[in-house]
Amino acid sequence: MRKVKIVPEAEDEYRVRPDPDDPKLTVRVAGVDQTGARVKTGVVVERPLTIFLNRQEIVTAMTIGDYPEYLALGFLLNQNMLRLDDVVTAVECDDDLEVVVVRTKRATDYEEKLKKKVQTSGCAQGTVFGDLMEAIENASLPKAELRTSWLYALTHKINTTPSLYLEAGAIHGCVLCEQDRPLVYMEDVGRHNAVDKIAGWMFRNNVRPDDKIFYTTGRLTSEMVIKTVRMGIPILVSRSGFTAWGVELARKAGLTLIGRARGKRFLALSGEERIVFDQDLRYVEDESAKHRRKAAVHED
Amino acid sequence: MRKVKIVPEAEDEYRVRPDPDDPKLTVRVAGVDQTGARVKTGVVVERPLTIFLNRQEIVTAMTIGDYPEYLALGFLLNQNMLRLDDVVTAVECDDDLEVVVVRTKRATDYEEKLKKKVQTSGCAQGTVFGDLMEAIENASLPKAELRTSWLYALTHKINTTPSLYLEAGAIHGCVLCEQDRPLVYMEDVGRHNAVDKIAGWMFRNNVRPDDKIFYTTGRLTSEMVIKTVRMGIPILVSRSGFTAWGVELARKAGLTLIGRARGKRFLALSGEERIVFDQDLRYVEDESAKHRRKAAVHED
Repeated sequence: MRKVKIVPEAEDEYRVRPDPDDPKLTVRVAGVDQTGARVKTGVVVERPLTIFLNRQEIVTAMTIGDYPEYLALGFLLNQNMLRLDDVVTAVECDDDLEVVVVRTKRATDYEEKLKKKVQTSGCAQGTVFGDLMEAIENASLPKAELRTSWLYALTHKINTTPSLYLEAGAIHGCVLCEQDRPLVYMEDVGRHNAVDKIAGWMFRNNVRPDDKIFYTTGRLTSEMVIKTVRMGIPILVSRSGFTAWGVELARKAGLTLIGRARGKRFLALSGEERIVFDQDLRYVEDESAKHRRKAAVHED
Repeated sequence: MRKVKIVPEAEDEYRVRPDPDDPKLTVRVAGVDQTGARVKTGVVVERPLTIFLNRQEIVTAMTIGDYPEYLALGFLLNQNMLRLDDVVTAVECDDDLEVVVVRTKRATDYEEKLKKKVQTSGCAQGTVFGDLMEAIENASLPKAELRTSWLYALTHKINTTPSLYLEAGAIHGCVLCEQDRPLVYMEDVGRHNAVDKIAGWMFRNNVRPDDKIFYTTGRLTSEMVIKTVRMGIPILVSRSGFTAWGVELARKAGLTLIGRARGKRFLALSGEERIVFDQDLRYVEDESAKHRRKAAVHED
């Protein structure tokens, strides 16, 4: 049993992590507080990014705009418009036009697909139901292990990592992890964007999914489950709650689904067999109100 | 100055409010907790609802499914596909097929519009940018007043109203209010659905927007601002944070935008002139950690 207390600060373990000091990501805005006093506050930016696949305009996403290349690649992958074996010949970003063009060796045409839309609670831009289900039906997620000692170390490290959320709030975070190490921490106004940026990063860096753990600040909706399964990651963890369809899809796909992970508490509603209970809970701290206020309120 | 303490329990003031006991809205699911013990928990349902406008399939939304008629009408209104002066000849719901068909006297065709999509951070299913901007440019929101005494009474009543959120979490809430009275409290897995259900209710019940206050648990994103402006409501309040574009659009439209409304604290970043500071803050309670934990974590 792991008896040592979890130690904070693991930012060095990150290959990508938030840069709350990037002036492009937040602006200072003036207003009044409850006493009527003039105050200034930082708010996250939200700008349109139009994604093209070869000649075709696919979508305009609202994003903080920090990783347009990863966002475009990940979005197309998670929409099943880009395949893992596709040869990407170029990714052209134009900051002024707020456009990113992904070029592939394979000729692509998703005219028909773009006509039919599904709005998921997790806000996948139009995705055809058939595709969503296909990803689940054909899922064959690998054997994997989630030690509770890793889980507690991860949530502690993630919650103590400087982030735009802690700076300005109103943003979502997703973290790609391996064992007890957070590797890539992406934030965005749209949680789906944060997921897609991680998928794009994995594609670009040829990172294998089978030994990874995916952490999200957001709810475990059907969309979140589908994206994780599509990415081939066997374990999905969130500090937030579940939806019934999310649980149903996770069970169909054999995904380990852990929610309400706060302090020493968590709840697994699918794939429990991957969990190894190696952490002595007497050595895990509950969330302090102060920390809870900071980390818990991942709004919308 | 308002010196009396705010008293809880105002459910009787509601014309529509959540029914956390409705067996159709949550299911019991079995899993394991952090100790490895088998536990059961309630999770909110999430089911597809395909919305037709006359002959045309418009979108499939994931919803808890409690008010398909209001959701369909509100969605079409907020997408600018249904006009306030349209004559709705029928709204046909088929629970088994999970389909709702809205029929209008006016012939409609949004083929072209459905091709072009924008994914907002707040998850508007495809909405053409032009339309979004049009709503803001042409906005002429009415003169109105927001007394801080109303604001504190509202947030207190809303936070103490029994809801699916308090039961199962992982859900969003929106409340249509008048002065210090909450009138319609809608919840859904997708926050945009909760907004649309309120818009549909207003349309069906011929409710005027100019003297209303709109409360949301979610972030004040560009989409949230645009929908509120489209609905003609001059004041938008949230316990969550802001995005820069949300603030910019609110200022363009002259919308009063209040965020981070918790306990005695709030922040107004647009339309401050409508606020009347009549509440003596010494008589307003801060949020307790317990209550904060309950009400604050409106996940994703």
